[in-house]
Amino acid sequence: MNANPILAEAMRGGIVESFHRGALAIVDADGRVHTRLGDIERPVFPRSAVKVLQALPLVASGAADRWRLNDEELALACASHGGEPRHAQTAASMLAKAGMDASVLECGTHWPYNDAALKTLAARGEAPGALHNNCSGKHAGFVCLGCLMAQGGDRRDFLGGYVKPDHPVMREVTAALQAATGYDLSRTAVGTDGCSIPTYAIPLRHLAHAFARVATGTGLSPDHARAAQRLRAAVAKAPFMVAGSGRLDTMLMERLGGRLFCKVGAEGVYCAALPELSLGVAIKIDDGNTARACEVVLAAVVERLLPLADADRAFVHGMSDLTLKNWNGIEVGRLRATGVLRHGDLPSP
Amino acid sequence: MNANPILAEAMRGGIVESFHRGALAIVDADGRVHTRLGDIERPVFPRSAVKVLQALPLVASGAADRWRLNDEELALACASHGGEPRHAQTAASMLAKAGMDASVLECGTHWPYNDAALKTLAARGEAPGALHNNCSGKHAGFVCLGCLMAQGGDRRDFLGGYVKPDHPVMREVTAALQAATGYDLSRTAVGTDGCSIPTYAIPLRHLAHAFARVATGTGLSPDHARAAQRLRAAVAKAPFMVAGSGRLDTMLMERLGGRLFCKVGAEGVYCAALPELSLGVAIKIDDGNTARACEVVLAAVVERLLPLADADRAFVHGMSDLTLKNWNGIEVGRLRATGVLRHGDLPSP
Repeated sequence: MNANPILAEAMRGGIVESFHRGALAIVDADGRVHTRLGDIERPVFPRSAVKVLQALPLVASGAADRWRLNDEELALACASHGGEPRHAQTAASMLAKAGMDASVLECGTHWPYNDAALKTLAARGEAPGALHNNCSGKHAGFVCLGCLMAQGGDRRDFLGGYVKPDHPVMREVTAALQAATGYDLSRTAVGTDGCSIPTYAIPLRHLAHAFARVATGTGLSPDHARAAQRLRAAVAKAPFMVAGSGRLDTMLMERLGGRLFCKVGAEGVYCAALPELSLGVAIKIDDGNTARACEVVLAAVVERLLPLADADRAFVHGMSDLTLKNWNGIEVGRLRATGVLRHGDLPSP
Repeated sequence: MNANPILAEAMRGGIVESFHRGALAIVDADGRVHTRLGDIERPVFPRSAVKVLQALPLVASGAADRWRLNDEELALACASHGGEPRHAQTAASMLAKAGMDASVLECGTHWPYNDAALKTLAARGEAPGALHNNCSGKHAGFVCLGCLMAQGGDRRDFLGGYVKPDHPVMREVTAALQAATGYDLSRTAVGTDGCSIPTYAIPLRHLAHAFARVATGTGLSPDHARAAQRLRAAVAKAPFMVAGSGRLDTMLMERLGGRLFCKVGAEGVYCAALPELSLGVAIKIDDGNTARACEVVLAAVVERLLPLADADRAFVHGMSDLTLKNWNGIEVGRLRATGVLRHGDLPSP
């Protein structure tokens, strides 16, 4: 196996201290590869980066209308949130609209990723619940879908085990993922995600194609195309919900609005849709480093591809080339996307 | 640049989800390379992995005797600790023995790395201080050394700026690092570490050689050789102090005692001394991942090199090949050292 190119590097004392290899696919809505860096055919687990694809049935089925979900709630259905109070409250609201509560969630419990939210809970002597799980909005969306699918039957009975691959809810979700990516999920590796739903290994080329479809609607069913447009619009209106305070997805989409839809995933994955360019983007950092490596790479891709006003460009550049400070606030180095993402044309096939 | 070999991999759903490249040097006390994996000549910042070398002057100068430092305090001088109550108390005790307090520390402040210690502080509405900084023991050691060097002068005046490369304290510390590694630190890249002292870029081959010298005393001055032996013995007696609850360094040395001295550093660095084999080990993970990648690699090296009883081997193996569980406690994958560290002879020069 050839090594993937170095996409991000951490500098200290004028030299490269650490570096991150990875692969990048940029694909148009017809499936043409616009940019290929590294191996974009190796199947990778997209993890949370495809939550918007997994939320398509929530809207397409009519469940979002049936339970009158608003933009904040639809954005939370696509989110890996920080467990801040508004996130937890919004997940609770989604469940309540469908007549449910947090006891039906099967995502598990962890302390909020947001540091202030964690310390506030600890200071109150409280423990976190499933609503604080970064996936609680996605799961609340599954529950809302399931409550529509249950029709006249007992909703709680119907929902039990909704995270399993063969549950009717998860079958709908997986079918949407397969339709958008055009990849045969019945023949690829299946893992269990952090929140217990299946995650399917899919090549970056197919993931980027799916996000070009999300960007344009091209190649999706009419229901899914409308659902994708509505979810993108909801996130553009409520970008806090998709991640949270100080998080890259929130900051970029607060700044750029509907010009960009981007979503981080665990283990160094990013997917993005660029509607005005009809392009989709998918990134995987080999070593799985999300917070550090994959974020600067995504920011560099946005900076490179989108025509931006100077102020917006400077804002995005500040996320692809960061100053690193130590505990005394002294500048000790930089974290930045490498030249392969900066200079000349990005390579194409 | 040829890519370094893959040393650790994270498995999910039966496939490799993410992987970590890096380099490994195992060197004997005469400087002969026992094992070379990847590029061991590239200078890398050793960060906290060389704290035992930086503590040599504390003992060799007579300061440790002058201030009657005990084993726990000497172990803390070599530590990247979790900021647990015993760590903070022990750092305070070192300072008090030299007539100082935490106000002289120049390491900066951060929340304890230990999760329970962080939540306890938060629950009390308290903020962390410099004693909770993972480097507070190392800095308390610098202060103890400086208080001896200040002789009749005003100690606080003398200590001011002790983190700077040209301060008499730091010059002593850097001289010890240069003597142990045999590498010309005046001609290499210098960065600023997280705790504001300089960190010098040194090839893994030289770092491993330094730890073989720590293991044996060979090639060190008699004072430094005695200091190395005393510091290793102190850590073997008080391994909790060098890291803390649930931390690899503490767990391995609690189990193996003086048969192993190992020390983690930031950005994916590990150094270790194996006295009974007269060998030193130095590892750098390319992407800087310490907690995940470098730990399993170090454990695999220990498992491979040290003759271990079955129970000890199983214990160490549990740290080089780990089960990964999700928020519901479901097994989702494995984290493990790769075959290059497992099968056949480790490659030699």
